[in-house]
Amino acid sequence: MAKQNIYDNEIFFAGYKGIRDNEANANNLFEMPALFSMMPQLKGKRVLDLGCGFGEHCRKFVDYGAEEVVGIDISEKMLKVAMAENCHPKIQYINMPMEDISQLQGRFDIVVSSLAFHYIEDFKGVIGNVYKLLDEDGIFIFSQENPLCTCHSGGDRWTRDENGAKLFANLSCYGVEGERESAWFVDNVKKYHRTFSTIINTLIEAGFSIEKMLEPVPTAELLEKYPEYKDLLHKPDFFLIKAKK
Amino acid sequence: MAKQNIYDNEIFFAGYKGIRDNEANANNLFEMPALFSMMPQLKGKRVLDLGCGFGEHCRKFVDYGAEEVVGIDISEKMLKVAMAENCHPKIQYINMPMEDISQLQGRFDIVVSSLAFHYIEDFKGVIGNVYKLLDEDGIFIFSQENPLCTCHSGGDRWTRDENGAKLFANLSCYGVEGERESAWFVDNVKKYHRTFSTIINTLIEAGFSIEKMLEPVPTAELLEKYPEYKDLLHKPDFFLIKAKK
Repeated sequence: MAKQNIYDNEIFFAGYKGIRDNEANANNLFEMPALFSMMPQLKGKRVLDLGCGFGEHCRKFVDYGAEEVVGIDISEKMLKVAMAENCHPKIQYINMPMEDISQLQGRFDIVVSSLAFHYIEDFKGVIGNVYKLLDEDGIFIFSQENPLCTCHSGGDRWTRDENGAKLFANLSCYGVEGERESAWFVDNVKKYHRTFSTIINTLIEAGFSIEKMLEPVPTAELLEKYPEYKDLLHKPDFFLIKAKK
Repeated sequence: MAKQNIYDNEIFFAGYKGIRDNEANANNLFEMPALFSMMPQLKGKRVLDLGCGFGEHCRKFVDYGAEEVVGIDISEKMLKVAMAENCHPKIQYINMPMEDISQLQGRFDIVVSSLAFHYIEDFKGVIGNVYKLLDEDGIFIFSQENPLCTCHSGGDRWTRDENGAKLFANLSCYGVEGERESAWFVDNVKKYHRTFSTIINTLIEAGFSIEKMLEPVPTAELLEKYPEYKDLLHKPDFFLIKAKK
């Protein structure tokens, strides 16, 4: 199955880095707090980060006491930034698509992946390999685009009033799984839509038990500061799962 | 919290019965096959059916070998039909809201509920009592309206083309949980919207482990026979879970 390396596209990379450099981005406000809220005690733990990108999470795992962190990413460009900005003797960065993690040596206490799985065609294969790489009672935590977003199949994502304000989200083809072409900085970014049920059942069939699911939406407090995020009350951007081997 | 008895409203009851009398209804084509696909071996088992309605499922459980079936429902009207049409010495029908099941005697191997939980305000309370009523390793299987449906907060559920054909579903307020007023045969039918995450986490926090999730959509074969169900590819009507104590 296809392994997609869109982050090494220069325009995509520049656009993505621009978003991440804005501190009030949705990742910082919603995805990261939710991801870390599910994290177990990291002291002395071996952590694997699938699609580690700029290595910000890897660095945090070490700050929180992890003994050994391996970050893998298919994109050389991303890892160059990671090595420049989030270098640490306890972190090893490996340029590898996550479809190839069966080649990794050793076992891990925790496997994490942040906002990468919606780019992955062979979800089942990756999940099976994560299971094998985890020690008994190991924890697997990941975030991805919410299935209410990945389902989108063309056209405007929103129905708008006469002033262009968003009224509600367009839910199209939620029940039709598979590849989606979308434009995000560049054309032809491939995403793979799976329903909530398929994601959950794939984990269970691999042997995992589900411990928690999150779909972060803004609190009233956050909306006061950042009213532009009120649309997430219609359609959360993110979906996170904590599972146990 | 409120206990809703909408099925004893005469107009609602007549409208609902009319739908169920049509054999190609969505319950028969999607919900029931999905529900029974998750059912364990029933031979010799004690089964509790929450919101048993006309008792059709109760009767099937006996046909499949269940030793003892208890069907409860808040609606006297529904139970009158159940006792007339699906009476059996192994089935006991009790007129009781499912919020009161802690009053039931005995333990069960399997608890089932079909399309009733979206009418229930105190979901957490009911789930906690289901857990207590199940024997060790007991199985809990339920269906409800899909959260992609229960979220609906007024206006047309669909965006349509100039001929009135459905283009896609309107997803409004998915992230805002709680009561919804809807009109189905009569005004002011109360439903309670919970996200996928809240439903799953409530089960896990009560002690259940999730075994399977289903959101049935039509197969190509079924669509050939009943093309009117193609909209379910945008927005599945149902959501089912199998969990284990």
